[in-house]
Amino acid sequence: MHADTILHARWIIPVGPSSRSHRLSMTDAPSGYGPRDHPHGLVLEDHSLVMADGLIAAILPTAEARELVRSTGARSIELPDHALLPGFVNAHTHVAMNLMRGVADDLPLMRWLRDHIWPLEGRFLADDFVHDGSLLACAELIRGGVTCFNDMYFFPEATLRAAEAAGLRASVGLPVIDFPTPWGSGPDEYISKGLALRDEWHGHPRMSFMLAPHAPYTVGDEPLQRIRVLADQLGIGVHMHVHETAHEVMEAERLTGERPLARLDRLGLLNEQFLAVHMTQLNDDEMALLRDRGVHIAHCPESNLKLASGIAPIARLKALGVNVAIGTDGAASNNDLDLLGETRTAALLAKGVSGDASAVPAAEALYMATLGGARALGLDERIGSLEVGKAADVIAIDLNQIETQPLFDPIAQIIYAASRQQVTHSWVAGQMLMNERRLLTVYEDDLLANAESWRARLVTPST
Amino acid sequence: MHADTILHARWIIPVGPSSRSHRLSMTDAPSGYGPRDHPHGLVLEDHSLVMADGLIAAILPTAEARELVRSTGARSIELPDHALLPGFVNAHTHVAMNLMRGVADDLPLMRWLRDHIWPLEGRFLADDFVHDGSLLACAELIRGGVTCFNDMYFFPEATLRAAEAAGLRASVGLPVIDFPTPWGSGPDEYISKGLALRDEWHGHPRMSFMLAPHAPYTVGDEPLQRIRVLADQLGIGVHMHVHETAHEVMEAERLTGERPLARLDRLGLLNEQFLAVHMTQLNDDEMALLRDRGVHIAHCPESNLKLASGIAPIARLKALGVNVAIGTDGAASNNDLDLLGETRTAALLAKGVSGDASAVPAAEALYMATLGGARALGLDERIGSLEVGKAADVIAIDLNQIETQPLFDPIAQIIYAASRQQVTHSWVAGQMLMNERRLLTVYEDDLLANAESWRARLVTPST
Repeated sequence: MHADTILHARWIIPVGPSSRSHRLSMTDAPSGYGPRDHPHGLVLEDHSLVMADGLIAAILPTAEARELVRSTGARSIELPDHALLPGFVNAHTHVAMNLMRGVADDLPLMRWLRDHIWPLEGRFLADDFVHDGSLLACAELIRGGVTCFNDMYFFPEATLRAAEAAGLRASVGLPVIDFPTPWGSGPDEYISKGLALRDEWHGHPRMSFMLAPHAPYTVGDEPLQRIRVLADQLGIGVHMHVHETAHEVMEAERLTGERPLARLDRLGLLNEQFLAVHMTQLNDDEMALLRDRGVHIAHCPESNLKLASGIAPIARLKALGVNVAIGTDGAASNNDLDLLGETRTAALLAKGVSGDASAVPAAEALYMATLGGARALGLDERIGSLEVGKAADVIAIDLNQIETQPLFDPIAQIIYAASRQQVTHSWVAGQMLMNERRLLTVYEDDLLANAESWRARLVTPST
Repeated sequence: MHADTILHARWIIPVGPSSRSHRLSMTDAPSGYGPRDHPHGLVLEDHSLVMADGLIAAILPTAEARELVRSTGARSIELPDHALLPGFVNAHTHVAMNLMRGVADDLPLMRWLRDHIWPLEGRFLADDFVHDGSLLACAELIRGGVTCFNDMYFFPEATLRAAEAAGLRASVGLPVIDFPTPWGSGPDEYISKGLALRDEWHGHPRMSFMLAPHAPYTVGDEPLQRIRVLADQLGIGVHMHVHETAHEVMEAERLTGERPLARLDRLGLLNEQFLAVHMTQLNDDEMALLRDRGVHIAHCPESNLKLASGIAPIARLKALGVNVAIGTDGAASNNDLDLLGETRTAALLAKGVSGDASAVPAAEALYMATLGGARALGLDERIGSLEVGKAADVIAIDLNQIETQPLFDPIAQIIYAASRQQVTHSWVAGQMLMNERRLLTVYEDDLLANAESWRARLVTPST
């Protein structure tokens, strides 16, 4: 067997496949319930993960792996206090908005957008702003264990350059909106620029694309019909904010008599390639429709709470079989890109809102943060779980810290107690991006200085 | 002026008093709303805090403070990227339960208690268990910026010894419950042991006490009447779980025709010395009653969500003028003692549940985590804000990190973006407990080894 690097870990949590055939003995635990009983709750103890040519070549007991080190001369990394798991997938971001983190808080969505975000974007939205904000966000994502993010913003070429430089995997939205911005005059130009960008990057091993119409209230029927045709022809997904607030749904009903989701279905957009972000407002028929169409949900609980938009009924959607991924949304409305923390919030909130403490158990939450996210982006053949043949998108979490000891169950400890600062290592397609918390592809000091210089520009009064 | 140590900080956030007369110029920010506009939103830039004999002796511009360093020979500590703020007050804990963190998850309150927690307590509850769990928790609390915690558990003498050794400030509950435990046979013995313990520690500068009847459904009228009399006579507070779940309230109504809060009021317990924990089930009359009686609330949103107990209507309580403090609850039901994260959850949840994004703005959330907590424990004369004459219970948070840059507003950044790992220094009564993340009063390696040895004992099947 060929091997580049072999990671010897205390625990390996593969997440997929959803089979229990590989169940090995786990840390003894009291008679209680635990993630071990869940289809995604497999935990391998004292196993090693073998990387070769950017892929996962094997997962095997560490005793066997040490033989392999000797025979192949592979690099060996000891992770005696760590769990290895698939890198987190952040299913909804606006990474450039890291430059506007905390610029306006404690406001509802429309006032926040109209009075603060849109005016600042009007003044500063340009290639350099998007590149610098995206690179700052990439550093935050890597430090938090995210290995793939799904973005929606203008100047996506700048986000692509940042993700490429940082070594992250990205699903980049090709934005479409009915009004002009510094990036384009309207839907025609947005679509043509987006497709040209996709052509330019086609075949890149870490970059993929989704069409990204902003929201039902900002994109008309004609562009949406073109988007549907393009998505079918090109076989790519569609990423869109839908039913973020009650106001959005009520206004659509008042003006057109039709709820936004019904309109999207009439236009043929709802299918297994459609990723609906937020979805805080859903009646029973709509939940059944989502299930029937195979639509994926990007759940952004902290942004939804902070903007008082509502709470997506995740426990019910999961029970129906709808695939739910987790997104942080942009740093201006969250205010972080902490996918692990977001997943914890999602799990807690699902229990609290459904009134069922067993809703979204820890292993299910971990699935949403990894393989569920990969499915939502159409990338589950390549990433989202630790399986032989998949890309080596892997993170290590050190669980031997005051905050996570004693340890009865690694999955419960990761979801309910660990923080993203316990992520120590990260690899994407076999490339190490972080080693013992040190970033290897970006320079933190430069990023901090650059963030401060953007702050000074943003607070300068407009003239 | 006498001075032991002087902290030169980029920002000082005093939290109290609630006057804006001391407002100084703040970092420029865009025209948006910000915590600066809040009565607790004062931020001093380039100021220094002077400690002397365990108290805050002065807060003054750093230029003046540097003169004082020269004239007094005080120790000088540079905190150029940091905000100084009052240490967090964790208003509801069961610190010994850190040894049961993650032992059983994804279960509702009564199954979790009856099938898992109570059986384990039956086997292991003893002085050594409580001491070791408490000391482990003290390390977590210090690392997370908590300088004072309010506990409720058996063997409080063991928790006291741990807090004393760790250098933390503690408000220790004297537990009362109608059934026997390894600590006592019933209410009579609990009360007499508790009062003896209080006498023993009376006058300790960092330790205070509250009577701690467990809950309405576990303590009868007779012991509650004795507790009321004792609280009046001794001038100490009462700390009790109340209306944690709908089940608790419904069962009381079914069995007695009386809601638990009404019963407590009938028994004369509700007053300004009463701290009601959880309070997820409240009707309008009850909220008005809490305001009229001056009752304090310890809000534990993550535990309430995780156990699907309900959500306390904090935005409405705050609007009525009820004092709300924040508690993490025990690590077995949360699963952390992260008071900063808990406060963030409280702020986000209050917005989401009330439908008002301006509810519980950042400065209000910070107040709940500090001075609001101190008020709830009857300690606001001594702690909870950075004011001359108060105890030097101070923490420093490093905001120059990838996750908190650029920075437009320190308070918003602390509440909505910073994590507890950014707390770098901690002092209680002027004693440094953590220096650049290094704990000075406890040995982390010993604590980790001890936690692992307890894990091994807990998972051993009972015979």
